[in-house]
Amino acid sequence: MAECENPIRFGIMGCAQIARKVSRAITMAPNSTLFAIASRSIDKARQFAVRNNLSEEVKLYGDYNDLLDDPCVDAVYMPLPTSLHLKWAVLAAQKGKHLLLEKPSALHVKELDKILEACESNGLQFMDGSMWYHHPRTAKMKDFLSNLELFGRIKAIHSSSSFTGTSQFLENDIRVKPDLDALGALGDAGWYCIGAILWSMNKKLPTTVTALPAIARNSAGVILSCSASLYWDEGKTVATFYCSLISHETMDLAICGSNGTLRVEDFIIPYEESSAAFSFTSVAKFVDLHIGWNVKPQEVHVACKLSQEAMMIQEFSRLVKGIKLSRLRPDSKWASTTRNTQLVLDAVKNSIEIGFKPVQM
Amino acid sequence: MAECENPIRFGIMGCAQIARKVSRAITMAPNSTLFAIASRSIDKARQFAVRNNLSEEVKLYGDYNDLLDDPCVDAVYMPLPTSLHLKWAVLAAQKGKHLLLEKPSALHVKELDKILEACESNGLQFMDGSMWYHHPRTAKMKDFLSNLELFGRIKAIHSSSSFTGTSQFLENDIRVKPDLDALGALGDAGWYCIGAILWSMNKKLPTTVTALPAIARNSAGVILSCSASLYWDEGKTVATFYCSLISHETMDLAICGSNGTLRVEDFIIPYEESSAAFSFTSVAKFVDLHIGWNVKPQEVHVACKLSQEAMMIQEFSRLVKGIKLSRLRPDSKWASTTRNTQLVLDAVKNSIEIGFKPVQM
Repeated sequence: MAECENPIRFGIMGCAQIARKVSRAITMAPNSTLFAIASRSIDKARQFAVRNNLSEEVKLYGDYNDLLDDPCVDAVYMPLPTSLHLKWAVLAAQKGKHLLLEKPSALHVKELDKILEACESNGLQFMDGSMWYHHPRTAKMKDFLSNLELFGRIKAIHSSSSFTGTSQFLENDIRVKPDLDALGALGDAGWYCIGAILWSMNKKLPTTVTALPAIARNSAGVILSCSASLYWDEGKTVATFYCSLISHETMDLAICGSNGTLRVEDFIIPYEESSAAFSFTSVAKFVDLHIGWNVKPQEVHVACKLSQEAMMIQEFSRLVKGIKLSRLRPDSKWASTTRNTQLVLDAVKNSIEIGFKPVQM
Repeated sequence: MAECENPIRFGIMGCAQIARKVSRAITMAPNSTLFAIASRSIDKARQFAVRNNLSEEVKLYGDYNDLLDDPCVDAVYMPLPTSLHLKWAVLAAQKGKHLLLEKPSALHVKELDKILEACESNGLQFMDGSMWYHHPRTAKMKDFLSNLELFGRIKAIHSSSSFTGTSQFLENDIRVKPDLDALGALGDAGWYCIGAILWSMNKKLPTTVTALPAIARNSAGVILSCSASLYWDEGKTVATFYCSLISHETMDLAICGSNGTLRVEDFIIPYEESSAAFSFTSVAKFVDLHIGWNVKPQEVHVACKLSQEAMMIQEFSRLVKGIKLSRLRPDSKWASTTRNTQLVLDAVKNSIEIGFKPVQM
């Protein structure tokens, strides 16, 4: 197995659009290599390899099981439809593969817990495919939010994640099919809003989650857009979000504290790869007569040598290497980040199902 | 009365902080003049005149009634505590004074309707003191929102209006006193959010208003921060807002359409007087592999020769002149803007009082 040790060898299970981006990221990450891809047919795997100019050394499998049986595959990146996660993620763990699972992680937390349990009991690293946590901008934003003087205590959060699905998307994409991604916009775009809100709150779960009675569904009942509100500490902190597959492109996060405000408009996919920005205002006051402000928002630009998705792969592979080479324990931080996101997502879905009533967590 | 006809002569009733800004605006507006100020005592009126370097020609009254009895006063600007609006605004109208009424306009719409009725039956112009409607930026933003190609249909709105009250403010300001401004943050900061949301919707009232169960009150029960959600057309359009007197300074309006997004961060008080900006993104798409966007937000800068408050005074005086000189009818647009804002404010308050349940409008 010595030959497989360095770099971490990835197998990609499923040739979704997002796999194109992640396969590139695996190639870019210095401690990782794309070792194999699997689709439901060898033809599809071949097509994917050709379209994405994959090296001829990348193994092609026409069956997911074959990839999982390959002893040289260290880790699996799994962009399968959500309804297939439970089966294949558990199987991957049973076969000893570290797991980078595309979001939404599961249809509900009970499924996710089976996946996490399978990873944990086999000593495997788990991470979901939320890339933005790994951008250096995210750490810089957290620095600001953690500064009691500049930002203070957190008061209100609003996030919006939306894009305009093409008519082809809205008819055919797995994200609008009840048997594939039953969570629709909530599982796709909403995953980021929930993640961003929990990230802002240092992963602290809200006490109450209430879906807002403003929801659009397609003819199959899949959510195309929805909103929700979250509260902490008897409402001392409030968050709202809007997610949609039928609205113009937004990736907004606005956080208001007692002393400062942070705003970012492209937190999920930065406008450009090499650099990303956010803005903040701190201890702003209105000038005499309230005819202006004493400060304007300041922009912080953060350079990014590696794309955020390559940094995600790099971090995942670093953890996998630690487990493989140094017998470290898997880092449970990523599993708990995913689980908290799923818990809130489940609560929003539950609130929708019971008529937009509050769900206590 | 010929001597009083040109420019419009304003009397200010009440020497609140905001009166300083508006007295300056009256002086700046080319078709208006500050004719008199009244306070509850002549000493207070004199202090105000000295502190604000008012011309010695400005008449000082120690009784509101005296100002209303002055036949040369065409119009009254009234920044009194909300609980006093009904009495003094109706009296002002009965005395034939056009009325610029500070917001919130009244404690509830029944009071407001008496004020509006008094103005209408006496052929008087009514306007509330929301300044931002009069900034040229606001018209530019409306141009963008009205462009079906660039912005499309409106989908989601979020607004935030907050400031950090000093300890002195939180103890003594009229806006936190139940007998003076019982509407607290909702009537003060929330007024702008509601106004901005209705402005975005071309004044169309929501079908449902629901306060979010995240609310802070002072020991007297006055709201210090709250949130609400509004829906139109069975939830096809959703709006949320956050208003607070105990959070960092925000004045945000973010509007997402089917084809575009508009964002402004200082819509109530522009960062500076001479120029204001907003940004928009239109028909944004993610580039191949979703590693960036095809466009970045564009900033639109709008120069402002007169401050927005002076433009408000100018517009109000223009309408008053039309009534005085050309026997035009009062422009009911401003009354209906105020009334719709008050209606939604009342609905939010109602929703809070009935335990955050939805209120149909």
